Amino acid sequence: MLARGKSDAGSRVLLGIGDDCALLKETSGEELAITSDMLVEGRHFFKDVDPRSLGYKALAVNLSDLAAMGAKPLGFTLALALPHADGHWLEAFSQGLFEIANQYTCPLIGGDTTAGPLTISITAFGSIPKEKAIRRSGAKVQDDIWVSGTLGDARLTLAALRHELTISAPDLQSIQMRMHQPEPRITLGQSLLGVTSAALDISDGLLGDLMHILEQSHVDAEILLGKLPKSGLLLQQSEAIQNQFAACGGDDYELCFTAKQEQRDRLNQISQELSLPLTRIGTIKAMRNSKPSIDLIDSTGQLLNKDATASLLRSFDHFA
Amino acid sequence: MLARGKSDAGSRVLLGIGDDCALLKETSGEELAITSDMLVEGRHFFKDVDPRSLGYKALAVNLSDLAAMGAKPLGFTLALALPHADGHWLEAFSQGLFEIANQYTCPLIGGDTTAGPLTISITAFGSIPKEKAIRRSGAKVQDDIWVSGTLGDARLTLAALRHELTISAPDLQSIQMRMHQPEPRITLGQSLLGVTSAALDISDGLLGDLMHILEQSHVDAEILLGKLPKSGLLLQQSEAIQNQFAACGGDDYELCFTAKQEQRDRLNQISQELSLPLTRIGTIKAMRNSKPSIDLIDSTGQLLNKDATASLLRSFDHFA
Repeated sequence: MLARGKSDAGSRVLLGIGDDCALLKETSGEELAITSDMLVEGRHFFKDVDPRSLGYKALAVNLSDLAAMGAKPLGFTLALALPHADGHWLEAFSQGLFEIANQYTCPLIGGDTTAGPLTISITAFGSIPKEKAIRRSGAKVQDDIWVSGTLGDARLTLAALRHELTISAPDLQSIQMRMHQPEPRITLGQSLLGVTSAALDISDGLLGDLMHILEQSHVDAEILLGKLPKSGLLLQQSEAIQNQFAACGGDDYELCFTAKQEQRDRLNQISQELSLPLTRIGTIKAMRNSKPSIDLIDSTGQLLNKDATASLLRSFDHFA
Repeated sequence: MLARGKSDAGSRVLLGIGDDCALLKETSGEELAITSDMLVEGRHFFKDVDPRSLGYKALAVNLSDLAAMGAKPLGFTLALALPHADGHWLEAFSQGLFEIANQYTCPLIGGDTTAGPLTISITAFGSIPKEKAIRRSGAKVQDDIWVSGTLGDARLTLAALRHELTISAPDLQSIQMRMHQPEPRITLGQSLLGVTSAALDISDGLLGDLMHILEQSHVDAEILLGKLPKSGLLLQQSEAIQNQFAACGGDDYELCFTAKQEQRDRLNQISQELSLPLTRIGTIKAMRNSKPSIDLIDSTGQLLNKDATASLLRSFDHFA
């Protein structure tokens, strides 16, 4: 049931499922990007999750990692542990999985299925022109910090499902796909090659993930909370909720990236071409201490004090 | 704790752990082999398994798949779900994992760890000269069928641990590494490039795995049960046990391969060079029906009847 999905005409998949290994053609002008993610029931998704959405999301989070380096998808392997054979569940899971696999021309090339507690482990492959991959380590002082799309709707959906706050059914309907079927920014990632200095995808929350760029680039950052792009629905919440969900909510799978100021016109042009908002949210600063830090500026232009910053950073909890 | 292990000087790993993806250098003269295996507690190993052996075996079974195609290891990713943080367990697991990773110069290049029921998912990568990979589909009528090493000791160990039969402690000691730390036939696999017509590794038992070659090559096979290579300890068991464990016992991770008769001298030479027995155990035959079949010949030269063959084939049970 899992062995379907299309490959494009120029596919580099020489051999897919059915032998000891899959085979990919290599070309000397490219590098191969590889990423692995494991999703476990109860930890990354609820027991009663819609299997179609789960199949979609399991590959989406891996494609998001490929996008963050600017890679073009080539294929993926799937290792799946299932508590019992359930044809309906597997059919729905496969539908979601192959919907996104076909959408991004990323065929299933190998895998393993076994009995066990529901666990999904995907390894995805992509190609990047030689020496062009967007690493986390390239951010430079005075670079702009950018983010794609809007932030916080996945966390807002989670809050509604947990009854932490109340959202009308139609409103929830309008944002819940952000949590269940995030859109990997594959086209954006490839457009950013040669334009940006560093990038990553936001899976654990903007501030926590940005810290990875700062650590690897040995720089600090200043973030303008008022500039964080939010959906109309999130803008209806209190400012505290807005800041918390947009700055620290996980599962958004937007890209956060840095670029020289002279790239602003080019990035605005890419935003128009892709019909995708790209928003400048801050600036890379020289590192002041032995560890990187983020200065948060509120909507009145005031620097948040240590306690307020720490409180905001603690708010991330990803199904804790 | 997991981020260690050595890479050789000519490594093609451009970027390892710590970014959104790992990066492998590509070269136009090679193909990339990719294999994934998932091991789940209670299904593939016992709850009280020695974590050092488990770490070793988790990578060994993937390297065995690379070996079966003739690939040279390049690196691997690990996705690991652990029920709780246990420093001693993880240290021992890592010891076993990196012992074999270093032995075969196969560095850890990426991964994911999460809370969850104990599950180990590894994807391993290897390189093969262009168009040289040994596939399952190349067996031809009149080819010899060969097997490396000896068969059945992993199953004999399992039988002793399950008290299905009695083996003295020193005897068990002498064979149990076959089950706990199987040796992937990496060097043999590379030596077989250009010599063999088809190959695979024996994980589920010789006859069941050989059937995969037959299906993909559209041929039948004749196997001489008396020729199956067995350890001295297995030879002490009844002939029924010998046949069952050698022909259908899983977890041996030897290679089964086919080759033209004119390759016999070359294969005997490889056997001497590697100090590894390579044994001719049968012949590829033309397919008689719509599905492939295996004729089993007993040690007196008699063809086993259908019932005896079916009974032998049913005996595989892999922790059922």
